[in-house]
Amino acid sequence: MQNFVFHNPTRIIFGAGQIARVGEEVKRWGKKALLVYGMGSIKKNGIYENVVSSLKEAGVDIIEYPGVKPNPVLSHVRGGVEVAKKEQVEVILAVGGGSVIDSAKAIAAGAKVEHDVWDFFTFSQPIRDALPIVTIVTVSASASEMNGGAVLTKEEGALKFGVASPALYPRVSILDPTTLYSLDARYTAYSTVDILAHMWEGYFNGAEKEPLLQDRLVEALTRTIMESTEVALKEPANYKARANIMWGSVLAFNGLTTAGVGRAPYPVHMIEHSLSALYDMAHGAGLAIVLPAWMTYALEEKEPRFARLGREIFGLSGDDREVAKNTVQEIKKWFSSIGCAVTLGEAGISKDEIKRIAENAVHLAELWRMKDYTKDVILEVLNYAV
Amino acid sequence: MQNFVFHNPTRIIFGAGQIARVGEEVKRWGKKALLVYGMGSIKKNGIYENVVSSLKEAGVDIIEYPGVKPNPVLSHVRGGVEVAKKEQVEVILAVGGGSVIDSAKAIAAGAKVEHDVWDFFTFSQPIRDALPIVTIVTVSASASEMNGGAVLTKEEGALKFGVASPALYPRVSILDPTTLYSLDARYTAYSTVDILAHMWEGYFNGAEKEPLLQDRLVEALTRTIMESTEVALKEPANYKARANIMWGSVLAFNGLTTAGVGRAPYPVHMIEHSLSALYDMAHGAGLAIVLPAWMTYALEEKEPRFARLGREIFGLSGDDREVAKNTVQEIKKWFSSIGCAVTLGEAGISKDEIKRIAENAVHLAELWRMKDYTKDVILEVLNYAV
Repeated sequence: MQNFVFHNPTRIIFGAGQIARVGEEVKRWGKKALLVYGMGSIKKNGIYENVVSSLKEAGVDIIEYPGVKPNPVLSHVRGGVEVAKKEQVEVILAVGGGSVIDSAKAIAAGAKVEHDVWDFFTFSQPIRDALPIVTIVTVSASASEMNGGAVLTKEEGALKFGVASPALYPRVSILDPTTLYSLDARYTAYSTVDILAHMWEGYFNGAEKEPLLQDRLVEALTRTIMESTEVALKEPANYKARANIMWGSVLAFNGLTTAGVGRAPYPVHMIEHSLSALYDMAHGAGLAIVLPAWMTYALEEKEPRFARLGREIFGLSGDDREVAKNTVQEIKKWFSSIGCAVTLGEAGISKDEIKRIAENAVHLAELWRMKDYTKDVILEVLNYAV
Repeated sequence: MQNFVFHNPTRIIFGAGQIARVGEEVKRWGKKALLVYGMGSIKKNGIYENVVSSLKEAGVDIIEYPGVKPNPVLSHVRGGVEVAKKEQVEVILAVGGGSVIDSAKAIAAGAKVEHDVWDFFTFSQPIRDALPIVTIVTVSASASEMNGGAVLTKEEGALKFGVASPALYPRVSILDPTTLYSLDARYTAYSTVDILAHMWEGYFNGAEKEPLLQDRLVEALTRTIMESTEVALKEPANYKARANIMWGSVLAFNGLTTAGVGRAPYPVHMIEHSLSALYDMAHGAGLAIVLPAWMTYALEEKEPRFARLGREIFGLSGDDREVAKNTVQEIKKWFSSIGCAVTLGEAGISKDEIKRIAENAVHLAELWRMKDYTKDVILEVLNYAV
């Protein structure tokens, strides 16, 4: 096990009916809240009303800032920073999925500084402070509700970059599995791919070659997420399945599975960010394409790790080489079975586009200091995705 | 999944060489520290010197309070409270295992009130506040380094009671697996039994009958702890094995495996407390005797849960009844294999004593509101331990 520091102070309030507690929770952090949400789905499923009435009951003033798009953009966050400053809000309440929570985090940090919020994402300025953040989760995928990360896209140049800071951990996150009942099959599947890809990149690429405990945690979470997704796709209102996905997705990327595995590069996420940025594709949808392609590219180097996953999760047997190869096929088959496109072609992206994708991705490869991922290497990976 | 709140703000600093950071960490919380430790083993293995020199370098004043016994006692804690008050220490530093950390917690809470510290343990007073606690772990078993619990024995009446409060979470815990190298085989085994019993009581007794995710987490941790213990007993200085035990033991009882399983009674711990209190037996040693006895007693009621453990961990097959029964035997066999006594007789306790043990245990059963555990029931359990 590699040395690590683990510190995750977010308070989780989990369960049906818990959204009614949001007023009292927000009130601990301030009396004037910026309510950040997305394109209005929370107005259709009743969550918005619950939230607003709880806040009002607690005497919290609300400044609304809706309009976060599925791949959240810088311009919208800049607008949120302006409103937060002008209105002198004391706390940010995010109601939504990873996009909304990430936008809320960027606004919370941006409200504390004079420079442009994008400077955080290019690493030219560190995030030292942020307004307190409270979240209510309506899509379970990113675990942003219990970590210090945020991802944002700058429209100009189509740059999808990420940042992380201890200041960005939400103070409280409320997770009610029934909010996932209205999540459609497509987004249920994309979310699951996102959850699995998070974990698997650490599992495949950690500096620690055989991290016994962390491997087993990832495998336990993987089995649970996969089984529960199959159930949730058939029965969208199955509480047990949604609850396992909701809590499992948090544990998958709240630092638990990566503590002790050492530095792990995230090439799949790096390349996928370009798909999201260029084609406004859901992150999970892009990962379903890039992950198998990258695995094919990395087959030889990662043979024992892919083989372990194949044996543990898909019950494969045989020598490492054979099992590793079949693992990629099993993953593709399973992603397809839950309704995901697993090639660029299936997603309607022509193979002529791969040069453009690689040119975009190389910016992030440089920023994340992944020297091995030159444009040519990224092209090679993408060739397996055609 | 049952509704739950999860909040674990303890910061973990994990890895070889990390004890040297204790000075700077303690300094964040105060300039005058009460250094609580045990019977002096930390002076033999060099930890004491490392700690003191780091504290001195950071300019922290040290008031020493050694002498914590393996089953920590109230009188010693009362003494610590007096010293803490008199010297007006600002922070408590515990260097040791669960006994030392639990004593430090009780002192930290006791220093903030005028009433007797035992009032917390009888639940006549709530713990609302405590001095900040920092820990350095030298025995991995209780997970006290990352939870809000503490257990203490009142010598008069031989009462071993426990308490829990959010105020008792350590601010920082430093875990260096090399500190476990000098732990002898006996205590290595007892610690492992303690870790497994913690998890398994929640696994067997949770209100949620089939908590998919939590079951898998417990199974992942169980496999890791068992395998790593077998390695550590053969090679006491195997870093990987000690590291897996050290981090695994924390995750086993820091709230992770119990979040969502609902209320779970802990009858094995309840009865074991009497063994520790009456015979000054190590907690893990007592658990190795009581756990299989209780499982035999509860065989019918808990059949499917025992069977699940047997299939997942011991690879058993057959119908539930048969597997459940064999699981008890496998657990006994494994506890024996790592050097634990699995009956009262093997531990040198005569069967004439069981009445006395049951009479003691019933106090805790009442305090913990475990109505089903009358003296007769406890006697029945203990009869299986003879």
